[in-house]
Amino acid sequence: MDSIKIFAPATVANVACGFDIFGFAVDAPGDEVIVRKRTDKQIVITQITGDEGKLTYDISKNTVSVPILKYLQYTQISEGFDIELHKKMPLGSGLGSSSASSVAGVFAVNELLGKPLVSKDLLPFSMEGERVACGSAHADNVAPALLGGFVVVRSYNPLDVFKVPTPSELFVTIVHPDIEVNTKDARHILRNEVSMKNTIAQMGNVAGMIAGLMQADYQLIANSMIDFIIEPVRAILIPEFFEVKNAALDAGALGCSISGAGPSIFAFSKGLETAEKVGIAMKSSFEKVGIIANAYVSGINQEGPKIIG
Amino acid sequence: MDSIKIFAPATVANVACGFDIFGFAVDAPGDEVIVRKRTDKQIVITQITGDEGKLTYDISKNTVSVPILKYLQYTQISEGFDIELHKKMPLGSGLGSSSASSVAGVFAVNELLGKPLVSKDLLPFSMEGERVACGSAHADNVAPALLGGFVVVRSYNPLDVFKVPTPSELFVTIVHPDIEVNTKDARHILRNEVSMKNTIAQMGNVAGMIAGLMQADYQLIANSMIDFIIEPVRAILIPEFFEVKNAALDAGALGCSISGAGPSIFAFSKGLETAEKVGIAMKSSFEKVGIIANAYVSGINQEGPKIIG
Repeated sequence: MDSIKIFAPATVANVACGFDIFGFAVDAPGDEVIVRKRTDKQIVITQITGDEGKLTYDISKNTVSVPILKYLQYTQISEGFDIELHKKMPLGSGLGSSSASSVAGVFAVNELLGKPLVSKDLLPFSMEGERVACGSAHADNVAPALLGGFVVVRSYNPLDVFKVPTPSELFVTIVHPDIEVNTKDARHILRNEVSMKNTIAQMGNVAGMIAGLMQADYQLIANSMIDFIIEPVRAILIPEFFEVKNAALDAGALGCSISGAGPSIFAFSKGLETAEKVGIAMKSSFEKVGIIANAYVSGINQEGPKIIG
Repeated sequence: MDSIKIFAPATVANVACGFDIFGFAVDAPGDEVIVRKRTDKQIVITQITGDEGKLTYDISKNTVSVPILKYLQYTQISEGFDIELHKKMPLGSGLGSSSASSVAGVFAVNELLGKPLVSKDLLPFSMEGERVACGSAHADNVAPALLGGFVVVRSYNPLDVFKVPTPSELFVTIVHPDIEVNTKDARHILRNEVSMKNTIAQMGNVAGMIAGLMQADYQLIANSMIDFIIEPVRAILIPEFFEVKNAALDAGALGCSISGAGPSIFAFSKGLETAEKVGIAMKSSFEKVGIIANAYVSGINQEGPKIIG
């Protein structure tokens, strides 16, 4: 095998109450990366599409190539690759766009080389793509993009992530409004301290979310989708956030919050039909004030990256 | 039925990472309460044993009678009862002593009256006993004493608690050193703010503990038994804390932390044999510096209060 085409999924990080520790993968959208072996030892980004010219071809700065460089350094494998990156989701959308590219690239190279490492071991390299994109090596998008499913980043030092089973009737609606929020800004407006009261309330919801997912207790999931720490601060960066959230809840969503750093907003629903209704309601709530928005409805993607060619 | 004798269990609150939200019940120790119907409408505490004379017979101030008064007020039942309270565990030990008494009393009265309320509905009344004991109506001891098992207090407003299944080979060792820590002091030394970094790390462990318990993943339970927020502060109130903790870990415990506000220290182990070894190691660590300590080894009590006569 000399070339491979990989799809890696978009991801929703934070998931209301789990700032920096929760994330899950969706079936769509996602990025596509094609990697081809070269006869020399060069790493070359040959094509980038879907980025409106915003991403660099510099392999030391692009989120698709940095994890590959780190991977080759770690495994001491000396091979060259051409990389095509096809962005199939908006940049800076809060959907883990950079993570999808990071994961797709390093997953592709690992496959082409005959899988010297198991998927989970690709995580540290993929996280280096996050560092390029947002300044720090977060795992809450990368880990679910790589492993699929609903993932908890229990600890960063040492790095420890695990998957949580999710109920089969849990569907997600993601609405991406056509506005820009910079991930670095979204981090900078957060406070460095949290009140003990909010910490306790948030821990209660984190526990509730895990138990709710594992027991397929939709009411417990709904009750636990309250964010006392991040949403109240970041919501101000997203025009119409509370109107859109209320529209989702009114349409039957279990809960609704910001996807990652925003501006995308996600909602959980029980059943595909409700999730679709919720999408229409959220989209139309944005459109009422003239903001164009795309809606995606999906189950929880359990697979992570996949070979599509 | 004119009289009843109830056992209600000791409880371990906080459970390392779950300050104010986690608690579980043990098989022993526990308090015993005897309640007898009176022919008049009076509520009278007729006998208290095991308290070294420290508890009041004033029904408006004793943790065993206050929940009963609130219960009768709420249900608008006009009956009189004699109450005997037999403390079978040390006061101010961090083992939920006041909660056991609160739960035993109101559970007894509800049984004697033919169970007008289900157990879970007794929680708000039992919490009023906590308010008398420590100034605020916490639920992390009362809820597991009442419901049995490992309990999460997801939210206080509205009050929402749920049980988490625990693995059958999970045993607890509790060591109570003969020193005094006042619960109010133990609360007052806590800061009102938590760093964002510690909040995130603690949430990761809360998620890990719930998933570890539900999946019987003992390694995940062990990894998650790290408290970044409370233990570092309260440990200074307990002489030899870190030596005792290290002794527990060296003897094979999964993890070890302060029980409630202390001074009791608890450890989780996989298997009864390890839990017993851990108890010997912890006790002897205290005794090395001349502190007398009692050790208890138990499974997780799934039953809560029980009728014993």
